[in-house]
Amino acid sequence: MFDLRPAGYVIGILIMALGGAMVLPMAMDLIDGHGNWVAMGLSAFTTVLIGGAIALCCHNATTGTLNIQQTFFLTTGVWLVLPVFGALPFVWGATDARFVDAFFEAMSGLTTTGSTVFTGLETLPRGLLLWRGLMQWFGGIGVVVVAMVFLPVLRVGGMQIFRTEGFDTFGKILPRAAEISRSISSIYLCLTLICMVAYSMAGMGLFDASVHAMTTIATGGFANYDNSFGDLGAAAEYIAVVFMILAALPFVRYVQLLGGSVRPIWADPQIRGFIYTLVIVVGILVAWRWYFITNSFEFALRKAAFNGVSILTGTGYASADYMTWGAFPITFFFLIGLIGGCAGSTTCSIKIFRFQLLFASISAQIKRIHSPHGIFKPRYNKTTVQEDVVSSVMAFLVLFLVTLAVLAVALGMTGLNTITSISGAAAALANIGPGLGSEIGPAGNFAGLNDNAKWILAAGMLIGRLELMAVYVLFTATFWRG
Amino acid sequence: MFDLRPAGYVIGILIMALGGAMVLPMAMDLIDGHGNWVAMGLSAFTTVLIGGAIALCCHNATTGTLNIQQTFFLTTGVWLVLPVFGALPFVWGATDARFVDAFFEAMSGLTTTGSTVFTGLETLPRGLLLWRGLMQWFGGIGVVVVAMVFLPVLRVGGMQIFRTEGFDTFGKILPRAAEISRSISSIYLCLTLICMVAYSMAGMGLFDASVHAMTTIATGGFANYDNSFGDLGAAAEYIAVVFMILAALPFVRYVQLLGGSVRPIWADPQIRGFIYTLVIVVGILVAWRWYFITNSFEFALRKAAFNGVSILTGTGYASADYMTWGAFPITFFFLIGLIGGCAGSTTCSIKIFRFQLLFASISAQIKRIHSPHGIFKPRYNKTTVQEDVVSSVMAFLVLFLVTLAVLAVALGMTGLNTITSISGAAAALANIGPGLGSEIGPAGNFAGLNDNAKWILAAGMLIGRLELMAVYVLFTATFWRG
Ligand SMILES: [K+]
Ligand SMILES: [K+]
Repeated sequence: MFDLRPAGYVIGILIMALGGAMVLPMAMDLIDGHGNWVAMGLSAFTTVLIGGAIALCCHNATTGTLNIQQTFFLTTGVWLVLPVFGALPFVWGATDARFVDAFFEAMSGLTTTGSTVFTGLETLPRGLLLWRGLMQWFGGIGVVVVAMVFLPVLRVGGMQIFRTEGFDTFGKILPRAAEISRSISSIYLCLTLICMVAYSMAGMGLFDASVHAMTTIATGGFANYDNSFGDLGAAAEYIAVVFMILAALPFVRYVQLLGGSVRPIWADPQIRGFIYTLVIVVGILVAWRWYFITNSFEFALRKAAFNGVSILTGTGYASADYMTWGAFPITFFFLIGLIGGCAGSTTCSIKIFRFQLLFASISAQIKRIHSPHGIFKPRYNKTTVQEDVVSSVMAFLVLFLVTLAVLAVALGMTGLNTITSISGAAAALANIGPGLGSEIGPAGNFAGLNDNAKWILAAGMLIGRLELMAVYVLFTATFWRG
Repeated sequence: MFDLRPAGYVIGILIMALGGAMVLPMAMDLIDGHGNWVAMGLSAFTTVLIGGAIALCCHNATTGTLNIQQTFFLTTGVWLVLPVFGALPFVWGATDARFVDAFFEAMSGLTTTGSTVFTGLETLPRGLLLWRGLMQWFGGIGVVVVAMVFLPVLRVGGMQIFRTEGFDTFGKILPRAAEISRSISSIYLCLTLICMVAYSMAGMGLFDASVHAMTTIATGGFANYDNSFGDLGAAAEYIAVVFMILAALPFVRYVQLLGGSVRPIWADPQIRGFIYTLVIVVGILVAWRWYFITNSFEFALRKAAFNGVSILTGTGYASADYMTWGAFPITFFFLIGLIGGCAGSTTCSIKIFRFQLLFASISAQIKRIHSPHGIFKPRYNKTTVQEDVVSSVMAFLVLFLVTLAVLAVALGMTGLNTITSISGAAAALANIGPGLGSEIGPAGNFAGLNDNAKWILAAGMLIGRLELMAVYVLFTATFWRG
């Protein structure tokens, strides 16, 4: 067994920060004169207090560095513990939620999944709506930092291929995380502000523009309306498309762009692969919609682009009930949700680079036909891919699909029907948000599910967000040994 | 481009053999005094004639050996061309089928899938029922030979791990195929005869016992009744369970068993893995059924064991409409269909050894946590697994799941609903037979599907039966080069 305290210290600090962030929604409710501010304040107080206590208990063991086990423990621990505190405002506040619902909503927020158990969002105090947005926004930046700093070091899901990307010097992991957080955070904040301004110019109120900007850049998908983006207007839809795409690109490229270097963006095989995928996906959907509906081309283009990009990037907004688009688009939406964006963005799911590495590996295998004894290594981004990257990626792909299946079976066991089970499992694991079918589809929500299903889905969100292996290793004896 | 004639010669010979086999159903119809014998005879004549012509055209190029491209071409060519001839009796005979239906049925037969487009099977001439059984029986032995001789040499789907299994001397591929065919065929014939006798003793008529014995040992699943095994009695169900399990084990072990060596059976990690899986799968189903229905334990055990083993081995018989068993068993049946039996048996699907290699690879990755720079190779059957085996298996798993998804989308595009699309894709690709839902589920059949869906499913059967890569390489430029 190893010393849990260095990881506990960081978790304590992050809990305190989460509690600190609750002051914003409390202020919002105070301004609105809504009594919900008491619950927000109480949550903030409790959270800061407990976070501080944890940090204090652990702080004398910190050395500014973590070993590999402590890093794994920290990564999963953060996403497991923060939702417990993020849930408090829903339990104590105007939603008066049971803990299972509150925890589901907080996990859905912090993992940027965006599935919601609350209905009548329009009637909620603005403090709670802001809290939902803030959780996704913090979750989003957390995800980028984890993907850039922790997962490559932990060799999770082939992420080790990005080890020397962008930040070449490998020092102690915590200072490095802080350094990357700083440079990425400013980009993240700028993108959010620009998105907010754009939404305002499209006619959204300042509050809606702020919350939706946060959940757009986080590819989170929480909206302030039960009808999601259904009634926010055409301009808002187009703006969302642009920013969802920007949020799906590797954030390190923006840092390089601000440094004056445009080339990394064009040269990045992930970005090229994502753009190709995007064009094909939207193209197919537009063609299908234009051919089968009598509306204008602009309408078909907008609805196809918005909902297609929303699912491809795993944001999960909806501006149309695509369950009514016919059998093909429904299956198509299920599948594009399994693609995802680029590694190092706020998106989840399988991600473009894993498909590219898969194709590279298969292509190397086919080359062996002519020279069975030749050595053909898969290549990516003009270099040979190490063997352990390939097996990590392959294992990720298989584990992802197996986990999807296990979650679907488990959901089926709780009594959910087939389409709800399968699409719900995918919506959670790939952090998309909405599933398919009448219950949890784009026109539904997760309120009516049984408690067991909600726990299973929350577990799926956590597992998917941490790229599976970061969670699964904690369940192995090898991990806890020595 | 390479010389296609050596492969063409073998295909010609096999077409002639298929035509020769049509004499049996012709004789059956003659005995029954059914006019269908004319169609059977005409099909036999045409098939032998064309097969002979092809063999003659190609025979002066044969050298008794095939290079790797010719072997690929032969493997896929056989399973693409034979169904065209196998379809003739359905087009010309009492079924008076359109070519798409006849081809679907023949492909379903020769790949041992067992999906059927014919209804009122009870009213068909016995010659056609026998022909369905014979196609599966020949398909089954063909599958074992391909799995033991061709796929290991072609390094398809990780099958190279079985390269030196059982038959140690690697000589010329055609003599070797003939040698293995001989020893395996006698085992195959014996098993079929014992199964037939057992079915007879359970009260089945000689004809039904023969056809069902053939489709059991082939894990094919064609039955002589629309209701499959629903009305054949408890004894027949138990017998079927035993022989479906026997047919899912590697046939080479029976050869070794007859050679006096029992050890290889107990020592085979595939067999152990399969038996464990079997016990767990049936155990879960029995527990579920016993808990939720009011019938006796025997009834729960029998229905769970029969239908569970039938889907796990990909046989595809049904003795109950498990669509009425509730949401969990339905999802469960979908998933166990993706497991399959042992490599070197007549079963299809992913197969036990690939799951074992997957777990071995993941386990090696987890060991890297403690020593990030250590070299951990996956181990299987007490030896280190070569890198190219691991990447082949991983690529197979991913390709399998991606192909499943693509087939499901394609089926969705033809207008099929979600459960029919997804389960139909799995039923074809894993050569199971029945899908899920009311249309193609255990109580339905494939008659009512549109033509495009039938072509897509037939393609899925072929791709799945040849373990994907054997088909896919034919679509690469690399393959045809040089
Ligand atoms: K999302
Ligand atoms: K079958």
